[in-house]
Amino acid sequence: MREARLDVALVHYPVVNRRGETIGSAITNLDLHDIARAGRTYGVGTYWVVTPFAEQRDLAARIIGHWTEGYGARANPDRGSALAIIRICSALDEAIAGMSADCGRRPLVVATSARCKGERLDFRDLRQRLAGGWPVLLLFGTAWGLAPELLERVDATLPAISGPGGYNHLSVRSAAAIVLDRLLAGPDRV
Amino acid sequence: MREARLDVALVHYPVVNRRGETIGSAITNLDLHDIARAGRTYGVGTYWVVTPFAEQRDLAARIIGHWTEGYGARANPDRGSALAIIRICSALDEAIAGMSADCGRRPLVVATSARCKGERLDFRDLRQRLAGGWPVLLLFGTAWGLAPELLERVDATLPAISGPGGYNHLSVRSAAAIVLDRLLAGPDRV
Repeated sequence: MREARLDVALVHYPVVNRRGETIGSAITNLDLHDIARAGRTYGVGTYWVVTPFAEQRDLAARIIGHWTEGYGARANPDRGSALAIIRICSALDEAIAGMSADCGRRPLVVATSARCKGERLDFRDLRQRLAGGWPVLLLFGTAWGLAPELLERVDATLPAISGPGGYNHLSVRSAAAIVLDRLLAGPDRV
Repeated sequence: MREARLDVALVHYPVVNRRGETIGSAITNLDLHDIARAGRTYGVGTYWVVTPFAEQRDLAARIIGHWTEGYGARANPDRGSALAIIRICSALDEAIAGMSADCGRRPLVVATSARCKGERLDFRDLRQRLAGGWPVLLLFGTAWGLAPELLERVDATLPAISGPGGYNHLSVRSAAAIVLDRLLAGPDRV
């Protein structure tokens, strides 16, 4: 059996704003750190940071460089080992192509969303796919979430994370941490 | 059976720095937002923000006020409803006293830590206590974690969150989201 390979992509375009309009969002320092640390904890292969804006890609590269090669690498090597799993790219297709090259096959592209597109998977289903050796690319949207034109292109959708009440406004950092825990924590998760 | 009551306390003092020395840490805007949003999602009673520094308590109160009463409350009411679960206090004893007054009994005070103090509980055990009506106050430490002198005073310890590898450096925002999901998501969590 192949080893499970799960990558994460944080999408800054196309996403929607609170009025449902398609926008590009800005890179956020703590999105890089928190999701890289969670990814490193749970054995994520690559954390793809997706933005079409060249200046934003440069900014992300400078932040990552500080922790992987600069002063931060010496002061806090644990942080560098988390940020080292990041790869910056300009569009989702680049992440899919990069992961396909790494794995020798196209990954299953899975969104987390209240709006179901593609196959509906629950967390148990997706754990079984991973255990069976399917590479999986999990998409997370910044701002108010992935835009409809991107959701049209995913292979499957996980249910939105919700608690006992109707409130459903987690930060993308929290949602990513919870989804990785549900998929990858294994028997420790009890 | 009583309804489960779980509160969260984010402790800024006493915590340790990377050298294990006891320090007080600064309030972080995103710690307020992310943990309040996760708390609101999972039905947390009160999110206690604990700092002995009066200026830091004023800063937190101004941030919260912006979203619960100021411009933010009109622009983004979902955010206000999350930040409204925050209560600012100067020491852990204040949080314990406040929660005791709300619940009519002292809560079980539980830390998440690799260093076990008090009774060792796993997540299943703590879910059973909550289901049985025990009020629970969950402590999270900022910086490099809760200081030993505070861990000496807890009733119980949950295991540290870890994935398949040895890396164990989640942000406190991610750790809080995962712990709340494990304790409170219910059957949706599969």
